Amino acid sequence: MTKEQLFEQIKIKKSFLCVGLDSDPLLIPKFLNKYDDPVYEFNKRIIDATKDYCIAYKPNIAFYEAQGTQGWDTLEKTLDYIPKDIFTISDAKRGDIGNTSNLYARAFFESMNFDSVTVAPYMGKDSVTPFLEYKDKWVILLALTSNIGGLDFQTKRLHNGEFLFERVLKKSLEWGDENNLMYVVGATRAELLVKIRTIVPNSFLLIPGVGAQGGSLENVAHFGMNATCGLLVNSSRGIIFASKDEDFAEAAQNEARKIQVDMEVLLKAKHII
Amino acid sequence: MTKEQLFEQIKIKKSFLCVGLDSDPLLIPKFLNKYDDPVYEFNKRIIDATKDYCIAYKPNIAFYEAQGTQGWDTLEKTLDYIPKDIFTISDAKRGDIGNTSNLYARAFFESMNFDSVTVAPYMGKDSVTPFLEYKDKWVILLALTSNIGGLDFQTKRLHNGEFLFERVLKKSLEWGDENNLMYVVGATRAELLVKIRTIVPNSFLLIPGVGAQGGSLENVAHFGMNATCGLLVNSSRGIIFASKDEDFAEAAQNEARKIQVDMEVLLKAKHII
Repeated sequence: MTKEQLFEQIKIKKSFLCVGLDSDPLLIPKFLNKYDDPVYEFNKRIIDATKDYCIAYKPNIAFYEAQGTQGWDTLEKTLDYIPKDIFTISDAKRGDIGNTSNLYARAFFESMNFDSVTVAPYMGKDSVTPFLEYKDKWVILLALTSNIGGLDFQTKRLHNGEFLFERVLKKSLEWGDENNLMYVVGATRAELLVKIRTIVPNSFLLIPGVGAQGGSLENVAHFGMNATCGLLVNSSRGIIFASKDEDFAEAAQNEARKIQVDMEVLLKAKHII
Repeated sequence: MTKEQLFEQIKIKKSFLCVGLDSDPLLIPKFLNKYDDPVYEFNKRIIDATKDYCIAYKPNIAFYEAQGTQGWDTLEKTLDYIPKDIFTISDAKRGDIGNTSNLYARAFFESMNFDSVTVAPYMGKDSVTPFLEYKDKWVILLALTSNIGGLDFQTKRLHNGEFLFERVLKKSLEWGDENNLMYVVGATRAELLVKIRTIVPNSFLLIPGVGAQGGSLENVAHFGMNATCGLLVNSSRGIIFASKDEDFAEAAQNEARKIQVDMEVLLKAKHII
């Protein structure tokens, strides 16, 4: 998917919501256990319920990998079930030397047909560039994460005064651009979005941490939105586990719609729609 | 496996060799394609041929993941086939927020029974500590990697003058110790082992980059060996693809034995055996 196609979807849906499919088999409603593949059944109903209100789905690969071969099968079926006009993110946080990153790229972009994959920057250029060689595919590079450990290294100041995450952003612009690189920036660090926008004004940012982790959608939009929106705001548990009973899909729909309505207001305020 | 058990194996085998099972289906000998699971057949023969000369095996998870569900099946069978007194490393380079790292720990330490997993440090404490809660299991944290991109961030100097990788080492000592934390240090950075040993004198280091990537075993031992050896030196392609014909296992054995002989000399020179 190209940047223009993604922006088009944002305008059509009046939403920049990404739904995180952190579908932990231990947390899905018990009544689904009567199906052959309970997690797939869960994902299908979540997708049916939320697809009109979101522009991206982000399966968290750990939740599938933890189930071994069965989990990979569930992941492949889920990916096939997602409507083709919705952007897909493999939240895998991979990062390895060149020949290994090549293989990860083959796994997520060829064996499976994800639009994008999250990548960790610690190993530098050759861990990232193999993913960038695929046309209309994206790397979403970890920049400033929402978790507490995000402060251990990412916000350390380098010798020249810049934060490590700023260095990551600047360095990455030698490898790709706004048409194949996005960045993970936690909603819990909204005040730092200003700094980030000076470095990557036109890039899309994937923003986790709204909701369960305490980040504010208004702050994120205020500091981070650009002329083509430039934001994919993710919510996982707040939507998919809004209810753990038989009405889970309806509850997920309500949550997704609520966020979509808030997003529509923010998009209008910025004259994007 | 405990640190003492690992050291015992080093003394018994007179070796600190780790064989990397980067078993790319495209690179294994063609005649194996007549078997149901060619990569498993390849791994079995490599293990049979090299197990007397190494003290660890390190499957590179990307090479299995790229094959989808079939690859995970191959990985599980390979792990079962490795003799129980040999240390096993899941080279996965995972790193995610706490609840996700919990799941990766469950995947590699419970669903599968690896002794250790490689972890990327960029996301900080909560991406690492879930793995440390397992008794006699290990995190092998990326510190200073052997690839060219390792210079993009890891050797950047922080405000206080220390390198980023030094900060990673120091910070990690707040989370674990020499009994559950090892570090990846590329052989191509042997001169920096002196700095590393001042921070983690007693820890084991996993050293890739000898052979194909140009690092020297002698330099690594000179700068990095401690009283309990403290080194696991990995060779992947140099051993498993020493020959691509029917004699591949014999060729792998010869390469592993050659390295073991060199290692025996170095262990004797340091009066470890």
